[in-house]
Amino acid sequence: MKIAGKHYRSIWVDNDGWVVHIFDQTRLPHAVEVLTLTSCEDAARAIETMQTRGAPLIGATAAYGMCLALREDPSDEALERAAARLKRTRPTAVNLAWAVEEIIAAVRNRPRAERVAAAYARAGEIADDDVATCRAIGAHGVRLIREVAVQHPARPVNVLTHCNAGWLATVDWGTALAPIYMAHDEGIEVHVWVDETRPRNQGAALTAFELGAHGVPHTIVADNAGGHLMQHGKVDLAIVGTDRTARTGDVANKIGTYLKALAARDNGVPFYVALPHSTIDWSVRKGLSEIPIEERSPQELTHVTGRSADGSMVSVQLSAPGSPAANPAFDITPARLVTGLITERGICAASEEGLLSLYPEKRQSAVGK
Amino acid sequence: MKIAGKHYRSIWVDNDGWVVHIFDQTRLPHAVEVLTLTSCEDAARAIETMQTRGAPLIGATAAYGMCLALREDPSDEALERAAARLKRTRPTAVNLAWAVEEIIAAVRNRPRAERVAAAYARAGEIADDDVATCRAIGAHGVRLIREVAVQHPARPVNVLTHCNAGWLATVDWGTALAPIYMAHDEGIEVHVWVDETRPRNQGAALTAFELGAHGVPHTIVADNAGGHLMQHGKVDLAIVGTDRTARTGDVANKIGTYLKALAARDNGVPFYVALPHSTIDWSVRKGLSEIPIEERSPQELTHVTGRSADGSMVSVQLSAPGSPAANPAFDITPARLVTGLITERGICAASEEGLLSLYPEKRQSAVGK
Repeated sequence: MKIAGKHYRSIWVDNDGWVVHIFDQTRLPHAVEVLTLTSCEDAARAIETMQTRGAPLIGATAAYGMCLALREDPSDEALERAAARLKRTRPTAVNLAWAVEEIIAAVRNRPRAERVAAAYARAGEIADDDVATCRAIGAHGVRLIREVAVQHPARPVNVLTHCNAGWLATVDWGTALAPIYMAHDEGIEVHVWVDETRPRNQGAALTAFELGAHGVPHTIVADNAGGHLMQHGKVDLAIVGTDRTARTGDVANKIGTYLKALAARDNGVPFYVALPHSTIDWSVRKGLSEIPIEERSPQELTHVTGRSADGSMVSVQLSAPGSPAANPAFDITPARLVTGLITERGICAASEEGLLSLYPEKRQSAVGK
Repeated sequence: MKIAGKHYRSIWVDNDGWVVHIFDQTRLPHAVEVLTLTSCEDAARAIETMQTRGAPLIGATAAYGMCLALREDPSDEALERAAARLKRTRPTAVNLAWAVEEIIAAVRNRPRAERVAAAYARAGEIADDDVATCRAIGAHGVRLIREVAVQHPARPVNVLTHCNAGWLATVDWGTALAPIYMAHDEGIEVHVWVDETRPRNQGAALTAFELGAHGVPHTIVADNAGGHLMQHGKVDLAIVGTDRTARTGDVANKIGTYLKALAARDNGVPFYVALPHSTIDWSVRKGLSEIPIEERSPQELTHVTGRSADGSMVSVQLSAPGSPAANPAFDITPARLVTGLITERGICAASEEGLLSLYPEKRQSAVGK
């Protein structure tokens, strides 16, 4: 997507053919800074410190990290060291380990002299595949926005989203935001209600930045406001992303997603979840009891970092010292509250039958595997 | 309630019999500072700058502001000037104008020499009445907590609350927190989930401070977390306050209350609203269409003030400059989602019949008056 009229991906190889660039997402939205990765260690640190984040983007970054490692030393030993280093950065992100293994598979049986080129080729494919997947999600999802636009030609289509499932979390397009970018680019008037997304504020910091940079009209609201907006007819549909989707259509996503789904149901607002197939966990049937919820540091809630009047970044404490806080990072939205799932293969009901209609090859997959 | 073992009200007259003290609530939770009001202008500024807030407490502060004005000049002209000045501070708070008029009524027909004493007497009654009302709300509401404690003697009773409806918003006890303080004081093990309450963070700043100072166990959570807690059985009941209650039991309260009520309903968690009769608007039948919702400054959402590492208070911006934001301050929780209303006269259903059973004198009051 675009920043000030110029198209970017969230990760790209320099014209020199080997140096890798990413945006420092810890500096957004206050500064747009491009980082240069020239070693596996650079890539590992960027993932660890969340300068780059979002499961698909972490996968692509790790793939390029493997390329940079091979460029220094194409031996099997170096390959294993790099894989171990990268996998240690964020051990829970499934895409990370997968991407690392893809590079190993691409180079393992090749002579050392060919390994670097093969690795870069495979990393490029991984990035391109992610873009194609997200573009397909957008192409399916944009139909939902187009339908509202046809019904209400005199006003913008109002979409509510939670957290950041945009191009900064993927290589391009995003998942939940892909249909929105596609609608905007084809001239549909669309306006996005951006949930602030406490406690890490990914909505206010990343989603609002992305949409603004590409020129999509949007308004940041407190996470508390979504129900009120829906009560007053100000939301045509909600689209969110997901971190893990159960075989049955239950959806794990950023904490607070469940509350918006409840409000959508109470007000007759369609509630969609956009996802690449890689987030479907075919082994999970009951989201609420089977998907573990990460408890993160209370400090994410009690402290916040922002830009002070003199332009410097300052961390401030909001609560009294010693006030206890808890920080569950995700919640489960039961399938019954989800109007539909938008995947790269099409839109389906949030149910096992719905998902299997798009992924028939999973019909035989045993649960529990 | 108590701070470090010593009992305080949120407003009190000094031992000298005339100087008035309040806590500077803009400094909480980072500093506990007592302000001294010695003139009507002091009182007006304290209300304007939100050093004191909460409808009942604003009323008491305005009443004492009238006393301080009369002490300087007991003439009718001075009385009118003071009334006009105080009413200008926060023109929408019903209690404020009411309290000012009460003082005028108490002194109007008296000789000037008796006016100051009569005003202080009436202001004291207003404050005492508020305490009695809140204590009665607590005495009725504590039964709900006691019932859970009897059912689950081996663990604390978990209550979720939103925003600040505690003693800092009233003269003592609070409304939603009164049953909690009463339960704690009678030895029931109670633990409170405190919603942060974006965008002004009254939960993290005021409710957590209050509860901590009195010794009530509590945990601050993001506003997004309540549904997740309820899904996992971690909330026994929810109790919130209200800014205005419709004759039919619809409730206007801090933005986000509606989302918690939806989650409570979805998980079978009782959802109670605590209120003094003064918040009931007998002229309103349909909360959603008849109660206006205040839109506040977007800056409350995009900027936040907290304590930096060096102890100074710093305001920081969270979003990119120019990112649009909207800040509706309240939402409406429909009566159908409210398990019951806790008033100073008892607990009733959230319905016209329920309210009229406690306030039969309103049976004849015409709607629309």
